[in-house]
Amino acid sequence: MNEIILTPIGTIRTPFRDKQHCPIQPTAAADARGRVEVLPRFAAGLETIETFTHLMLFYYLDRAAEVILSRPTFLDDNNHGVFASRHPCRPNGIGFSIVELVQWEGNLLHVRGVDMLDNSPLLDIKPYVPRFDARPGAGNGWVEGKTMGEKPPGRE
Amino acid sequence: MNEIILTPIGTIRTPFRDKQHCPIQPTAAADARGRVEVLPRFAAGLETIETFTHLMLFYYLDRAAEVILSRPTFLDDNNHGVFASRHPCRPNGIGFSIVELVQWEGNLLHVRGVDMLDNSPLLDIKPYVPRFDARPGAGNGWVEGKTMGEKPPGRE
Repeated sequence: MNEIILTPIGTIRTPFRDKQHCPIQPTAAADARGRVEVLPRFAAGLETIETFTHLMLFYYLDRAAEVILSRPTFLDDNNHGVFASRHPCRPNGIGFSIVELVQWEGNLLHVRGVDMLDNSPLLDIKPYVPRFDARPGAGNGWVEGKTMGEKPPGRE
Repeated sequence: MNEIILTPIGTIRTPFRDKQHCPIQPTAAADARGRVEVLPRFAAGLETIETFTHLMLFYYLDRAAEVILSRPTFLDDNNHGVFASRHPCRPNGIGFSIVELVQWEGNLLHVRGVDMLDNSPLLDIKPYVPRFDARPGAGNGWVEGKTMGEKPPGRE
């Protein structure tokens, strides 16, 4: 299999218009409100979504810059492989964020804790299910103890 | 943006050759061993991945059947929207599993807790970082209390 063609199922609206002010992770912007606009023809796919408190959003990092396989990140100055970090410039450009579901309204989902750029193309929504997704024993790897502060200027 | 073209970065090898015997979720097959084969040209992207205990694998559900927006799932007989369930037949077919990293070896990752079909095309690897990804207060939605048993025969 060489090429896989995806088509957005909607758009994510957030307060973040540029990369410099975009939060590093949802946990760094727990109060940031956003709106997931699912294309009306996919609205039936939301049935019973209101039973969940949290959703996993999969989207396309459409404004990412050059992919560099190993580089310093926002969190420290050491090199980390792109697959050992959450850096947004990555092969295939799939963005992933867990957000809190505030309200379901037809084809719209009002959410909290967004960290993606405004107008990010939505690829998929899956419910966050602790029974499947919680890993209480997991470690933070090299991210342990790093401070999430301002993004260093000029660093992608 | 109408079309997004992705190219696999590797392959996931697992013991599961057919859908009927594929586990419903990694938590239902915590001991199932697998191997993530990253294409050699992407191996540099794994730098410092060995510091993590768990990884998030993003892959293409290349053998999924017809997408039905709302249907019964493996877990109960009520209709659930595809975006309110983890059903494998979904728009854009992005699979997501959290696995345990057992050993890193060049461009290979030995992992545990796999639940995808053998030879699934790998799209991305992100480290699972509890600081970013744990949501201790989250609910299980309609999945709460459902029994993960055998898949009902003939149900996709």
